Amino acid sequence: MVPPISVRLKLKKINKFMSTTIIDGKEVACKIREKLAEEIAELKALGKTPGLAVVLVGEDPASQVYVGSKVRACEELGLYSQKWELPADTTQEQLVELIHQLNADERIHGILVQSPPPAHIDEEAVILNIDPRKDVDGFHPANVAKLVLEDEEGFVPCTPLGCMELLKAYGISTAGKHAVVIGRSMIVGKPMANLLVSKKANATVTIAHSRTADLPGLCRTADIIVAAVGRPEMVNADYVKEGAVVLDVGINRIADSSRPRGYRIVGDVDYEAVKDKCSAITPVPGGVGPMTIAMLMANTVKACRQLTR
Amino acid sequence: MVPPISVRLKLKKINKFMSTTIIDGKEVACKIREKLAEEIAELKALGKTPGLAVVLVGEDPASQVYVGSKVRACEELGLYSQKWELPADTTQEQLVELIHQLNADERIHGILVQSPPPAHIDEEAVILNIDPRKDVDGFHPANVAKLVLEDEEGFVPCTPLGCMELLKAYGISTAGKHAVVIGRSMIVGKPMANLLVSKKANATVTIAHSRTADLPGLCRTADIIVAAVGRPEMVNADYVKEGAVVLDVGINRIADSSRPRGYRIVGDVDYEAVKDKCSAITPVPGGVGPMTIAMLMANTVKACRQLTR
Repeated sequence: MVPPISVRLKLKKINKFMSTTIIDGKEVACKIREKLAEEIAELKALGKTPGLAVVLVGEDPASQVYVGSKVRACEELGLYSQKWELPADTTQEQLVELIHQLNADERIHGILVQSPPPAHIDEEAVILNIDPRKDVDGFHPANVAKLVLEDEEGFVPCTPLGCMELLKAYGISTAGKHAVVIGRSMIVGKPMANLLVSKKANATVTIAHSRTADLPGLCRTADIIVAAVGRPEMVNADYVKEGAVVLDVGINRIADSSRPRGYRIVGDVDYEAVKDKCSAITPVPGGVGPMTIAMLMANTVKACRQLTR
Repeated sequence: MVPPISVRLKLKKINKFMSTTIIDGKEVACKIREKLAEEIAELKALGKTPGLAVVLVGEDPASQVYVGSKVRACEELGLYSQKWELPADTTQEQLVELIHQLNADERIHGILVQSPPPAHIDEEAVILNIDPRKDVDGFHPANVAKLVLEDEEGFVPCTPLGCMELLKAYGISTAGKHAVVIGRSMIVGKPMANLLVSKKANATVTIAHSRTADLPGLCRTADIIVAAVGRPEMVNADYVKEGAVVLDVGINRIADSSRPRGYRIVGDVDYEAVKDKCSAITPVPGGVGPMTIAMLMANTVKACRQLTR
């Protein structure tokens, strides 16, 4: 039965003030890790222990933190791991030699070179030397192509893969939806667009970027917004249509004298300004971020399965 | 000086009835061929003759016509060419053996296996055997990745490359424009989207497909529409906003008893219905079609340059 207008308006109002779903990346990542721990235990029972090698060149403090988290995640899940910390003056040849050694190491199924390396290292050339079957970051051209070709044996970069898992975990369907991806990087924007447009996801996908005209207007046509642009709190209420889903990939430091460290971390989305308009949104931190390492672990397990079958 | 309103309205009206630019693919292709002929003459003077091998398996009449046109284009431009016509019962192994032979043949810089091969041939596996540096169709994963990575040494599939050249020839800028690509195939839709979103073209790109909701409404937001969906005359006046540019990649046969052959060729766009709304449009035939072979020749010359430098 259709309610009388007054009630309908009231219902609308109530809906408007109903709480937005806050997508909890920590919780989803935790559940995925639990599942992975079971899979790893099964693989180990078959004498197969997935192994990840993480390579860091130089002493960048942020990179050291990331590498530390990755190795710790391996240990927690029972994965075999190797942490290679090379001095900042490591040559291209020395790094490539290590990659070849890791390609040949049967204990290692995933190889990751922490980005960015020092300026004298040609990162692209290094990646070309990683065996694509061990390229758990999904940056090797062979894996870039596999994603476009929708070949599921390939490896997809961890951040966009994590975004897809978040949507799945919250039962947010993408088929027939209009997704706007802001950003066209090789690490997030382009792979994200490819995942969303694939026959598995069936979204209609727009890739927007710094040169897009009327970005707010475009974003207001989106059912799903993925912000991966690296500009603090750029996506404000003007960008978001009522009921949209917003995934915030940004991790930006902004000065904040009230914090002990003198800064705080914000996303590409002005969370407070848009959250009441969204049907679902990822916070920063605690949204997409925690998924990245979980996906790295998942890719390593996948690599182990594919290499040992 | 700003004219008074009445005049402005009048101007608008006049503009509305001014003729649409009919994008003449034959003329553009002809100019490109002339330029290529000069380049080929220069290369030949250096002792380098670009060479293309075209491989046809089976007796599909349409494929025979296509292969014939490609070889004829080579002859007209002074390219060296080989035409391989293999029986329909050629095995996968025999075909791959020929590919390897062509990879090693120094006279050959471009290799093309006419699609579709007979059903018993695994086309994807055949393509994987083509030396990516000779993959002038741009279908090898190495070239798929190069397009995504915006590496200009790669080869781009001829049809989307031809579309970009048409826009260039008519001075139609893509930067900041909203382009809607209808179709997500590996041969047209996906490479077209990648070309348009690249830092060279800077368009905001939407990839639409069979599962897109309200396709006409979406297309009406487009400054540039690329129709590559394979549905005769699907894009009608309802899809096109005033002043849009429409590129029609479709080549569909529809029954027509008034024609001697009993059919006529139409595009994916209802040309008569939309042409007065467009600022520019490609007809079918005579639009995108003639560009394809010209781009194949251009890719072969590029392959020769890159292999002999």
